[in-house]
Amino acid sequence: MNDMLAKTMLTPTSTAEILVDALPYIQLFAGKAVVVKLGGAAIDPESDRALAQDVLLLRSVGVRCVVVHGGGPQVDAMLRRVGKQPEFKDGLRVTDGETLEIVRMVLVGKINRDLVATINKSAGDEPVAVGVSGEDAGLLRVDQRDPALGFVGDVTEVRAELLLRLLDDGMVPVVSTIGADESGQPFNVNADEAAKAIAVAMGAEKIVYLTAAPGLLADPKDETSLIPRLTSAELRRRIEDDSVGGGMIPKLTACADAVDNGVPFAHIIDGRVPHALLIELLTKHGIGTMIKREANW
Amino acid sequence: MNDMLAKTMLTPTSTAEILVDALPYIQLFAGKAVVVKLGGAAIDPESDRALAQDVLLLRSVGVRCVVVHGGGPQVDAMLRRVGKQPEFKDGLRVTDGETLEIVRMVLVGKINRDLVATINKSAGDEPVAVGVSGEDAGLLRVDQRDPALGFVGDVTEVRAELLLRLLDDGMVPVVSTIGADESGQPFNVNADEAAKAIAVAMGAEKIVYLTAAPGLLADPKDETSLIPRLTSAELRRRIEDDSVGGGMIPKLTACADAVDNGVPFAHIIDGRVPHALLIELLTKHGIGTMIKREANW
Amino acid sequence: MNDMLAKTMLTPTSTAEILVDALPYIQLFAGKAVVVKLGGAAIDPESDRALAQDVLLLRSVGVRCVVVHGGGPQVDAMLRRVGKQPEFKDGLRVTDGETLEIVRMVLVGKINRDLVATINKSAGDEPVAVGVSGEDAGLLRVDQRDPALGFVGDVTEVRAELLLRLLDDGMVPVVSTIGADESGQPFNVNADEAAKAIAVAMGAEKIVYLTAAPGLLADPKDETSLIPRLTSAELRRRIEDDSVGGGMIPKLTACADAVDNGVPFAHIIDGRVPHALLIELLTKHGIGTMIKREANW
Amino acid sequence: MNDMLAKTMLTPTSTAEILVDALPYIQLFAGKAVVVKLGGAAIDPESDRALAQDVLLLRSVGVRCVVVHGGGPQVDAMLRRVGKQPEFKDGLRVTDGETLEIVRMVLVGKINRDLVATINKSAGDEPVAVGVSGEDAGLLRVDQRDPALGFVGDVTEVRAELLLRLLDDGMVPVVSTIGADESGQPFNVNADEAAKAIAVAMGAEKIVYLTAAPGLLADPKDETSLIPRLTSAELRRRIEDDSVGGGMIPKLTACADAVDNGVPFAHIIDGRVPHALLIELLTKHGIGTMIKREANW
Amino acid sequence: MNDMLAKTMLTPTSTAEILVDALPYIQLFAGKAVVVKLGGAAIDPESDRALAQDVLLLRSVGVRCVVVHGGGPQVDAMLRRVGKQPEFKDGLRVTDGETLEIVRMVLVGKINRDLVATINKSAGDEPVAVGVSGEDAGLLRVDQRDPALGFVGDVTEVRAELLLRLLDDGMVPVVSTIGADESGQPFNVNADEAAKAIAVAMGAEKIVYLTAAPGLLADPKDETSLIPRLTSAELRRRIEDDSVGGGMIPKLTACADAVDNGVPFAHIIDGRVPHALLIELLTKHGIGTMIKREANW
Amino acid sequence: MNDMLAKTMLTPTSTAEILVDALPYIQLFAGKAVVVKLGGAAIDPESDRALAQDVLLLRSVGVRCVVVHGGGPQVDAMLRRVGKQPEFKDGLRVTDGETLEIVRMVLVGKINRDLVATINKSAGDEPVAVGVSGEDAGLLRVDQRDPALGFVGDVTEVRAELLLRLLDDGMVPVVSTIGADESGQPFNVNADEAAKAIAVAMGAEKIVYLTAAPGLLADPKDETSLIPRLTSAELRRRIEDDSVGGGMIPKLTACADAVDNGVPFAHIIDGRVPHALLIELLTKHGIGTMIKREANW
Repeated sequence: MNDMLAKTMLTPTSTAEILVDALPYIQLFAGKAVVVKLGGAAIDPESDRALAQDVLLLRSVGVRCVVVHGGGPQVDAMLRRVGKQPEFKDGLRVTDGETLEIVRMVLVGKINRDLVATINKSAGDEPVAVGVSGEDAGLLRVDQRDPALGFVGDVTEVRAELLLRLLDDGMVPVVSTIGADESGQPFNVNADEAAKAIAVAMGAEKIVYLTAAPGLLADPKDETSLIPRLTSAELRRRIEDDSVGGGMIPKLTACADAVDNGVPFAHIIDGRVPHALLIELLTKHGIGTMIKREANW
Repeated sequence: MNDMLAKTMLTPTSTAEILVDALPYIQLFAGKAVVVKLGGAAIDPESDRALAQDVLLLRSVGVRCVVVHGGGPQVDAMLRRVGKQPEFKDGLRVTDGETLEIVRMVLVGKINRDLVATINKSAGDEPVAVGVSGEDAGLLRVDQRDPALGFVGDVTEVRAELLLRLLDDGMVPVVSTIGADESGQPFNVNADEAAKAIAVAMGAEKIVYLTAAPGLLADPKDETSLIPRLTSAELRRRIEDDSVGGGMIPKLTACADAVDNGVPFAHIIDGRVPHALLIELLTKHGIGTMIKREANW
Repeated sequence: MNDMLAKTMLTPTSTAEILVDALPYIQLFAGKAVVVKLGGAAIDPESDRALAQDVLLLRSVGVRCVVVHGGGPQVDAMLRRVGKQPEFKDGLRVTDGETLEIVRMVLVGKINRDLVATINKSAGDEPVAVGVSGEDAGLLRVDQRDPALGFVGDVTEVRAELLLRLLDDGMVPVVSTIGADESGQPFNVNADEAAKAIAVAMGAEKIVYLTAAPGLLADPKDETSLIPRLTSAELRRRIEDDSVGGGMIPKLTACADAVDNGVPFAHIIDGRVPHALLIELLTKHGIGTMIKREANW
Repeated sequence: MNDMLAKTMLTPTSTAEILVDALPYIQLFAGKAVVVKLGGAAIDPESDRALAQDVLLLRSVGVRCVVVHGGGPQVDAMLRRVGKQPEFKDGLRVTDGETLEIVRMVLVGKINRDLVATINKSAGDEPVAVGVSGEDAGLLRVDQRDPALGFVGDVTEVRAELLLRLLDDGMVPVVSTIGADESGQPFNVNADEAAKAIAVAMGAEKIVYLTAAPGLLADPKDETSLIPRLTSAELRRRIEDDSVGGGMIPKLTACADAVDNGVPFAHIIDGRVPHALLIELLTKHGIGTMIKREANW
Repeated sequence: MNDMLAKTMLTPTSTAEILVDALPYIQLFAGKAVVVKLGGAAIDPESDRALAQDVLLLRSVGVRCVVVHGGGPQVDAMLRRVGKQPEFKDGLRVTDGETLEIVRMVLVGKINRDLVATINKSAGDEPVAVGVSGEDAGLLRVDQRDPALGFVGDVTEVRAELLLRLLDDGMVPVVSTIGADESGQPFNVNADEAAKAIAVAMGAEKIVYLTAAPGLLADPKDETSLIPRLTSAELRRRIEDDSVGGGMIPKLTACADAVDNGVPFAHIIDGRVPHALLIELLTKHGIGTMIKREANW
Repeated sequence: MNDMLAKTMLTPTSTAEILVDALPYIQLFAGKAVVVKLGGAAIDPESDRALAQDVLLLRSVGVRCVVVHGGGPQVDAMLRRVGKQPEFKDGLRVTDGETLEIVRMVLVGKINRDLVATINKSAGDEPVAVGVSGEDAGLLRVDQRDPALGFVGDVTEVRAELLLRLLDDGMVPVVSTIGADESGQPFNVNADEAAKAIAVAMGAEKIVYLTAAPGLLADPKDETSLIPRLTSAELRRRIEDDSVGGGMIPKLTACADAVDNGVPFAHIIDGRVPHALLIELLTKHGIGTMIKREANW
C-alpha cells in the first residue's frame, strides 16, 4: 500500500533521480562477478521470480552473476517420498549411496531446473540461464570429509573456466553443488562452502547469501537486533563465542573465509524481501549484514 | 518539494521496482546508438550537468550516445563582442569568412569544450567525453547551399567511422557541426540537419532533439497543446500546412527525414526538464513528441 | 578370446597399419560435429565406459561429439518407486505434472549426471563433459503435441549456440531432452526427435543412434537380416509398409528427417557392442544400418 | 632556382637512389611514434602545407605522427580584438577566466581547426586528421602552477590512450594544449611542456620542435653558430649558464626532460624550411639541433 | 657521372621534394600485391642486388612483393656440365626425367637460393626472403602440355594461400616455377605463365616482367622504337601479326592474359637498369611498356 | 605374411581397442612439436612413403611435425657426376665453393623436393608440405667452423618463427640444413646438429633421429645389443669412452645436447622399419633408443 502510494506520486523527475542514484553502483559493479547463494529455505516461486528479475537486470548492466543454490528441505521431502528418513550428524546430512542419488536428482534435476526455468521465463526471447553441476567440466573437485558421513565432500579445487566462459557468452550459470573426487565418484557438498569456494576461484567482487532471516542478529531471537556490518575477525570471534545461531555457522564461516581469501564483500541478506539483491547492489539502502576484511566501511 | 516528499517516502522495495521497470528499456537500447541534439537555446550549466549525468548513465548500461550541439545565441553574442552584426536571410545565418571563423571558434572552441568539460567532470576518474568537429576525419562533407549565404553547407556525405571507433572505445563524442567541402574549405552546417545525417549514417536507433519547448505543439502559442506522437507523413503535412512555428521547421523536417531514412524513432523533448533524456529512454513516462514512420505505437 | 589372440599376435607394424587405415576417416571427420543418441535401453555402466572412451578419442582427433540420451526404463523404475504407474498412449508417455517432474529428475539429475561422471572419469585430469538440458539457454523450444498426452512437446526451434560454444571450448555436451514452451513451462521431448533436431540445427556431419539392436532388420525377428544401408526414401517406404518393428518408428523417422534436412549420414548401430561408435567412424568395418539421402554409397 | 635546376637534371636512376637512401630511415621509424611540436610563430599557410605533406608521407610509411601546436601570437591578436591587453609575468601569460576562454577558442577553435583542415586537404580522399584537446578523454591532467598566473597549469598526468587509438586507426591527431584539473576546470598549458609530456607518455621515438630559428645557437645573435648536437647534460649546463636566449628555455628544458625520460631523440629544427620534418627524419641531411641522453651519435 | 653531378647538387629541399613526389604512389600501392617476374637472362649479381633493395624498400612502405624467377641459361649450363645437350621444340624445352631433375635442382637449389641470399643480405638483421617452389603447399597444380615435350606442364590451379600468409607475416616469397600434377609428379612450368597465374590468383595490382630489353619494341631490332603503352587487345593483335620478336610471345601473351583476368597493370621493363622496379612503381618516370585492359591511361 | 595373418584375424572390436590404446599418446602429443631428422642413408622411396603417412597421421591428430633431412650419399653421387671427388677431414666434408653449390642444389633442389612431393602425394587434396632452407627468413644463422673445412658452419642462432607460422597454418615444414653467416654467405651445416638446434629453439617435445640402425648398440657390431634407454649423462660417458661407433657421435651428441637444453625426449630409431615414427609416438611398442635428462622412465 505504502509502496503503491509512493509510486503513484512519483514524478518523472524523481523517477529519473532514482536511476541517477544507481549510476555509481552500476559503474562500480559493471564487469565484476557476483556470486549469489540461494538457500533452500529461501526458495519459493514468488521470491524466485523477483530474484530472476534482479539477476537479469544486473546482467543487463554488466554484472556477471552466478547463482548457487541449496535445497535441504526439498531433499528431505523427496527422501520421505521414497520412504527414507533423512539422517543428520552434527548438523550434516549422512549421505549413503541411495541418499546421494536422491540429493543429486533433487538439486540438479528439480531445484536447478526450476531456477533456470524461472530466469529464462523472465528473460523472454533471450533465455540466458544455464544449469551447471559441480561435476561439469571438473567445477568442484572434492575429498571425502568423514567416512561416517558417507558421500559428503569438502571442496579441494575449483575449475571456474566453464563459469567464466558462460559469463563471457552472456549466460547466467545456476550451480548445483554436487562435486566429484579424483575417481569421479560424486559427493554432496555444502552449498554455502561451495559458493564461497567458487567466489574465491572466480575473483568475485561480492558473495551474497540470500537467507530466510534479516541477516546476522546480535540476539538470534530478536529480528530487530541486526548487525549491519562487521569485519571477518569480529565475525570469527562471534562464531567462537557461540553467540550466533548454530544453523548460521557454516554460512558465517564461509563469509569470513571469502573475505579473508580476496572477495572484497560478503553479505547475508533477507531473501524473503522482494528484490533484496537489487536493493543491496544498486541502491543506497544497505540491507542485511555486510562483512569485509578491514573496517573501511 | 513534491519530489522531495516522494523521495522521502520511497521504501527500498519501491526503489527497486523503479529499477526493475527500467529493465526492458535498458535491454532494448543496450548496444544501440542514440544521437542527442542539444540546441543552443537549451544549453545552460545546470541542464548540461543533468544531461551529462544522463549520457553517462546511459553509457554505463550500454547505450552509445553521440551529442550534437548548436550554438546560435552564443555565436550572436561573440559576433557582437568583436563588433559584427549577425545577419540572417530566410532564417539562415549569412556567413562570410570572418563570421565563419567566429562560428567555428565559438562552436568548437567554446560550446563543445564546455560540454566536454561538463561530462568529464561528472565522469570523475573516467573522463570519456571527446570533442569532435565535422572536419575531423571527414565526418561531414558538404556542398555550398547558396552563394548568397556564403559559407553555409548542406551535408552530402557522412564518414561516421571516427564516431563508431570512439564509441567502441567507450567514449562519448560531442560533435560541432562544421563541415568541409571537397577543397577542404570549412562551412557552417545546420546542427539539426547534421544530427539527422549522422544518425542515419550511424544506423542510430533514436534521434532526440532537446529543445526549449515541450515538443511539437498543435497551437505554437499553447504549451498544453502538445502532440505526443505522429507519423513522418503527418508531420510533413503539418509542415506544409504552415501550422507549425517557423523556427521549428528545420528540426521537424530533420525528424521526418531521419525516420524516413531508417532511424526508428525521432523525439523532440524539453531540454529544460532535468534528466529529460533519461526519462524519455528509460521510463514509461513518454515526454515530448515522438515521430515514427508507421503508426505502430 | 579370439581378440586376445589377435592382440597377442600383433606386431608393431601391423598395429601401425591399423592407425594408418584410420587416417582418412580422421581427416574426414576432424572439425565436424557428430550427434550420438544413446537410448535408455542401451545405457549400462560397461558400454557407457566404452562410449566415454570413444567420445574422448574422437574429441582428441578433432571430432565434435554431442551426446543426447533417453531414459524410458529408468523413468519407469522411478515412477514405480514413488508409487506411480507409467501410462502410455500410442506408445507415447502420458505426462502429467507429477510425471514430468519425475522424468526431469531422472533424465537431468540421474542419467545425464551418470554419463557426465563416466566421461569425466575416463578423461582423467581434463574433465570435459558438461551436462545440458534442453531448457538451458533456450536449447529446445517446444509446442505441446496433444493435450491428452499432457506435457509432451514437439521441437519447434533449436538454439544450438550453447552447444557450439561448449564444443569450441573443447567440451563434450551431454544433453537431456527436456524442452520449454514460450511461457517457460517444461515439456518432455522424445529423445530421438530431439537428437535429430539438434543435429540439423548444428549442421552435424552425422547422427548416430546407439540402440539395443544390430540396426534395421528386414525381419525384426531375425538379427541376421540386417539392412546395411538404404536411402531416406526407401526407409520411408518401409515405415509406411509397416514392415519395421513399431518401437523403431520414431528413430527411423528421425533418421529419414535428419538426412532429408541436410545431415549427410544417419546410422543405427548396436550400442551393446563395445566401441561401436569408434568402429563406425574410424574403421572400414561399417556396422549397423546407414541412411543417406542419395544412393551414392 | 637552384633546386629547379637540380630537379631538371635528375635521371630516373638518381631519383631511385634518393629513394633507396631513405630506406634505412623508413625501416627505423616504421611503427614508431613521433611528436611534432609546431610553435605559434612557425605557423603560416605555406609551411603548414609542407608540414601536412610531410606528416602524410611519414604516415604512409608507417610513422605515427602526433602534431602538438602552440599559438601565442594568434591568442594575442584575438585578445586585442576583443579589447583585452595580453599580460605576462616572467614570460608566462597571466590567464584570468576571460583570457582562458579566448585562449581556448583560438587554440581549439581556430589554430587546431586550420591545421586539421590543411592536413585533410592534402590527404584528399582519405581525411585522417583529427583535432584533439587536452581536455578530451582526460588527455592532459594538470595542477595550477601559481595562483598569481591564474589558469596556467602544469601537466601531472597524461592519458595517451585516445591518441594511441587514433594512431592505431590510421589517424593523425592534432593536439591543442588545454588541460583540466581534477575538478574539470580547464587550464592553459605550455605547449612545449605538454608535447614533451605526451611524447614521454606515448613512448615516442622522437620529439621534434619546429621553431622559427635554425636550432640552438651558440650565440643567439648569430644564425651560423648552430650547435648540431649535444647531450641533455650539456644542454642543462647551457640553460644554467644563461648562454641561451630566454625564449628558448622552456623548449630546451622540455628537450632535456624528454630524453632523460626515455624519448631517444629530441630535435629543434627550423619550421620555416619547407619539409624540414621530412628532411630530418628520412634523409642523411641532419638539420637543426639534436639532443640525446648519451653522446653515442 | 651525370648522376653523381646531380646528386652532389641536391639540396635537402629538393631531396625532400623527390620523397614528396613518391607519396601518391606509395599510398596507391600500400597493401597491394605486385608480382615481379625476373627472367634468367636478367639475373646477375649486380642487378639482383639493386632488385633486392627495391623489393625491400617497397616492402617497407607496404607493397607486398612476390618474386618469380626463370633460369633458362643457367639450366642449359648445368645440363652441359653433366654432359646433356639442351633440346627444344617450338621454343619449349624437351624435358625428360633427367632434365627435369636438373631443371629443379638449378631453379630451386641454385637460382632461388641465390636470390633469397641476396635479398636477406640486403635486409640485414631482418632476413625476410623465403624460397618457395610451386610444389610447396600445392602452389602450382599442372597438367601435362604435350607428351612429346615430356615433363612440361600448364598451370590449371593456383593455391596462393601460402604466399598470402608469408606476405601477411612480412615475408618476401621468391618462387621457382616447378609444379605438380594430381599424382604428385613434378613438371617444369614456363615462368612467365606461372607468374601470370599467380598474379591473377592473388588479385595482384601489378605484374612486372623484368627482361633484358627496354620493353616492347615496334621494331624488335630498334631499341629506340619502344611502345610505351598499349591495351591487351592491341597487344594481342601485334602477337597475331607476327610483328613481335618470337622470344617475347609467351611473356606478351601472359601480359594480355593477366590484365584480361583482373590484374590492373602489366609491365615489361628493362631489368638491366638499376632500380628499374622502384622507378616504375614510385616515380613519375614510366619506363618500359605498360599494358592495361582499357585505354584509360 | 605374419602381419597379413594378424590383420585378417582382427575383429572390429580388437581394431577399436588398438585405437583406444593410442588415445593417451594422442592426448599427450596433441599441440606439441616433434622434430624428425631423416638421415640420407635412411632415405628411399618406400620408407619415405611410410614416413609421409606417419607425418600426416600425426598432423591430423594435432602433432606439429618438422622434418629435417640430410643427404650425404646423394651429394657424393652428384659430386662424382660433375667430376669432383668428395673429400673429408675427420669425418667432415671439406666444402669449397663449388662443393657448396652442389650440396645446396642436391639438398634443397632434389632431396627436399622429393620429400615434399612424397608427402603432398600422400596428402591428396590437401598438400601441406612446404620446403624450407636454413637460409629462409634467417632460420639458421651460422659461423664458420674451421677455415680448413671451407663453407662448413656451426649454428649460432635459430629463427624458428617461419616454422612456427607454417605449423600454425597446418603446414609440414621440410628443412634443408643450409645456413648463412652474417654476410649472407651460405654454409653447409651438419643436419644432426641443425635438427637439434631447431628442436631446442622451437621448444619441441621430442626429437627423433631416423637412422639406418636399430638404435644405440652396446656393441656396434651386434644388432641385438640395443640399449633401449639411457640418460644424457650416461650417453655422454659412452661417447667419451669411445664405446660407440664413430659415425654415430654427432647424432649422439646432438641427442644429449637436445635433452640437456630442454627437449624432454630424444630418440634414435630405425628408419628402415615402416611406420617407425608412428610406432614410437602412438603405441606402447617403444622402439630404438630413448634419451632423457633424468632417469624417470
